[in-house]
Amino acid sequence: MPDLDIDVLVSEVGPRDGLQSIARAMPTDVKHRWIVALAQAGLREIEVGSFVSPRLLPQMADAGQVVREARKIAGLTVLALAPNLKGAERGIAAGVHKLSFPVSASRQHSVSNIRMTPEQAIEQVRQTCALCAAIPSGLRPSVEAGISTAFGCSMEGAVSEDWVMKMAADLVSAGAGSVGLSDTAGCANPVQVKRMFARLQREIGNHAGAAHFHNTRGQGLANVVAALEAGVTTFDASQGGLGGCPCAPGATGNIVTEDLVFLLESMGLRTGIDLDRLIAAREIILEGLPGEPLYGNVPNAGLPKGFRYASPGRNG
Amino acid sequence: MPDLDIDVLVSEVGPRDGLQSIARAMPTDVKHRWIVALAQAGLREIEVGSFVSPRLLPQMADAGQVVREARKIAGLTVLALAPNLKGAERGIAAGVHKLSFPVSASRQHSVSNIRMTPEQAIEQVRQTCALCAAIPSGLRPSVEAGISTAFGCSMEGAVSEDWVMKMAADLVSAGAGSVGLSDTAGCANPVQVKRMFARLQREIGNHAGAAHFHNTRGQGLANVVAALEAGVTTFDASQGGLGGCPCAPGATGNIVTEDLVFLLESMGLRTGIDLDRLIAAREIILEGLPGEPLYGNVPNAGLPKGFRYASPGRNG
Repeated sequence: MPDLDIDVLVSEVGPRDGLQSIARAMPTDVKHRWIVALAQAGLREIEVGSFVSPRLLPQMADAGQVVREARKIAGLTVLALAPNLKGAERGIAAGVHKLSFPVSASRQHSVSNIRMTPEQAIEQVRQTCALCAAIPSGLRPSVEAGISTAFGCSMEGAVSEDWVMKMAADLVSAGAGSVGLSDTAGCANPVQVKRMFARLQREIGNHAGAAHFHNTRGQGLANVVAALEAGVTTFDASQGGLGGCPCAPGATGNIVTEDLVFLLESMGLRTGIDLDRLIAAREIILEGLPGEPLYGNVPNAGLPKGFRYASPGRNG
Repeated sequence: MPDLDIDVLVSEVGPRDGLQSIARAMPTDVKHRWIVALAQAGLREIEVGSFVSPRLLPQMADAGQVVREARKIAGLTVLALAPNLKGAERGIAAGVHKLSFPVSASRQHSVSNIRMTPEQAIEQVRQTCALCAAIPSGLRPSVEAGISTAFGCSMEGAVSEDWVMKMAADLVSAGAGSVGLSDTAGCANPVQVKRMFARLQREIGNHAGAAHFHNTRGQGLANVVAALEAGVTTFDASQGGLGGCPCAPGATGNIVTEDLVFLLESMGLRTGIDLDRLIAAREIILEGLPGEPLYGNVPNAGLPKGFRYASPGRNG
């Protein structure tokens, strides 16, 4: 849920979703400078890493250290991904504020991504929530789940909406504080997005969580407009659309944070984010990953003449 | 207005808006092959050229010949731009079905673009409509106007909505069959788009015309979603987002036809367009303009597994 002085929470996932898709590792100190710059630009929640096996994703091997450093940034919610209880334990030990579990609606995707069935993944969420319940409330991390391939799967094709909703309810029963929907494969369209987020809210009420859209087919911001109409107030995005596959030019990763923030502020929705500062942070990415392709139109085009932020204090 | 068997008319402007932004000229025979391929992909209306001074835009010097060839394509509405009465006369002589007049709401943009004030531009529309009225109805071209910089101007900044609406009413009085709104500078946001197209319909009823969005800041398809909600049924788009400025990478031209068609068909809106054939037509552009950067995500990512068209007869 956004703070009182913002209307929409932009949750930056570049340091996790972006960097995990790039074979090279960004040096830990650069990750930290990037996260600091993002927080200074006004981002309030950042997914800083993933507690997966360092053997599988060596780019994420420093997740514990990155979390510990990020926790020193005042006002920042430090989020990290955990695929299972073991990862969650590492995240909790490092001091995350929030754990994010990817739980795939597609059986094939689930097995290939985290080597578990959807039911087994939900069980990991349940065990993690039980573990968290034993932690004193001031230190207790919240647990959120994101249903991957909720809008379709590149392996299975169409995914049952009833099944997605059942999973969402089961995840809430397992203790997840919020459950979001992810367009992992870039299949979603605005009609489907509006229908599914509206239904998610009917089914799990204020546990309904973030929208996580990949921009694979260029439809990301169109889907954001639809999700806003369904009442979604938290959106994941990645600076520079980081995580585009170099084998498929144009097949970008997440929606681009810069373009998303421009969309929201233009629509009169306060994000608390300063675009000039945000765009300046791109330099740090390129320091850590020289030559890495960065996406986004607003960084190239700049702000329109006479542009006014919705966020108070950002104008002039 | 779309035909009965489609829900949304995609009006391809690449051969005009795209090519006029590129310094090199595409050879006339390649233009013709491209237009044929677009029509074969299902596009029903194509803006094939511009009757401007060949001194100013040598890329458009063959507009008459291109129109005459395009008229031979069965079922295609052949549209051409005219900035003034003189251009309109050339277009009529070549046999266009429709003339499109750009009339800028921004005084500065109007003078720098067509060396006329908005009032003078409206007067050219009036004279053209009077000329057309004298043509036998079976041969008479229709006249549409597009209000450029309707959502903001890169020179003047914000543009008065009241002024845009007054211009629209004046253009209808001058005889224009339809009046659309153009986001020439890529300033528009979905809230503004929905509000202005809804108001346009209130002010000029069924004379309300096409939405023409540039994708300068990556917001084009988000604005399409908003325009659809306001009841817009005709959208301009350019194959490959042709017309991006090579000096500003990412500062693309119009919204990308391929991505737009995917959006509309995914939403259940019939366009009558076949995406595989459309994507294949990109090759012809590159034959005529080797090395030209083409934009769009769907051409790279392909269609999702299990994708179904809204258009009947396109599936399987």
